Amino acid sequence: MNCNYPGFITHVRRYVDLTQSDVEIVESYFKPLELKRREHLISEGQVCTSNFFVEKGCIRMYYVNEKLIEQTTQFALETWWLSDYFSFAKQLPSQYFIQAVEKSTVLAIDYQLQDKLFSEVPQMERYFRIIMQRALAASQLRTKLMYQYTKEEMYRHFNTSFPQFFQRVPQYMIASYLGLTPEYLSELRRKG
Amino acid sequence: MNCNYPGFITHVRRYVDLTQSDVEIVESYFKPLELKRREHLISEGQVCTSNFFVEKGCIRMYYVNEKLIEQTTQFALETWWLSDYFSFAKQLPSQYFIQAVEKSTVLAIDYQLQDKLFSEVPQMERYFRIIMQRALAASQLRTKLMYQYTKEEMYRHFNTSFPQFFQRVPQYMIASYLGLTPEYLSELRRKG
Repeated sequence: MNCNYPGFITHVRRYVDLTQSDVEIVESYFKPLELKRREHLISEGQVCTSNFFVEKGCIRMYYVNEKLIEQTTQFALETWWLSDYFSFAKQLPSQYFIQAVEKSTVLAIDYQLQDKLFSEVPQMERYFRIIMQRALAASQLRTKLMYQYTKEEMYRHFNTSFPQFFQRVPQYMIASYLGLTPEYLSELRRKG
Repeated sequence: MNCNYPGFITHVRRYVDLTQSDVEIVESYFKPLELKRREHLISEGQVCTSNFFVEKGCIRMYYVNEKLIEQTTQFALETWWLSDYFSFAKQLPSQYFIQAVEKSTVLAIDYQLQDKLFSEVPQMERYFRIIMQRALAASQLRTKLMYQYTKEEMYRHFNTSFPQFFQRVPQYMIASYLGLTPEYLSELRRKG
């Protein structure tokens, strides 16, 4: 396979067929972004003009709450998509920041170019339909867990499902995502 | 406009163009279901074979928790879609019930027929991509509110955004959705 972004193209091909010439067209629509640790993709007040695919690394979405504390609402590791879909779809200012948690390579597809891509390679519309549906399934599961689990159970579930997270992501971000204080999270981690 | 399900076809046409012959094809893929109040579309343990569009009425998704109490996780009013997307996409048994809250008319598209519809009317793949993206935007907002608001603020937000809900939906379902006891919800409602 001859492509520039193997992680991305392999992911697309899990859902739709692409010929070698499709791959070249598809890749030409994506802008690779090399991000330093803690570099921002968007900041509050900006329009989220892109949808982001994590080729390598980890990014997160957060907002700054009324106590001026960063509240992380989502993480994305390799092969995950992340965007503020309200801002992206409406091209209105975002209430979020999207930031690299570690050194990352991200592929960005521009809102304005998406439709042109879909008319050139219609399978990509299908790919995004399936990806959005999967993201929705993940979000339904997350909502269920938020009802079902205590914060402590949520931590254990998260720790078992994504053990690499705790190696890669600063504790205060995980604590914020789980709705715990950093102190309580380290207590839980000590207890094991 | 000549169609059997005007609410649905109007909704689709907000996002994609359909000719009169497209409308006839599209409608032939959807099965109308007339539901009595409290009738179930799926029950825990069944595969969720369809995605449901509310033409008229209101449906909800819930699971039964370890205390054998119904926990409502989602509602869908007119023009909203609802399914267990994990069960639907994987064709695996669902952990949920989907039930009519009031007398409802629902259109069901079968998982097995979807792809045939998309190949006959490709705009429908686009329609579902956009619908899934919108649902994802709504779910990001809901997650943000769950971090940001107390349960009391969540109630006020919900009451202001969807006033008709409180007329149409039994209080115990709303209380469960908001994570409140029914007693506390009536106290909040009395305070106004």
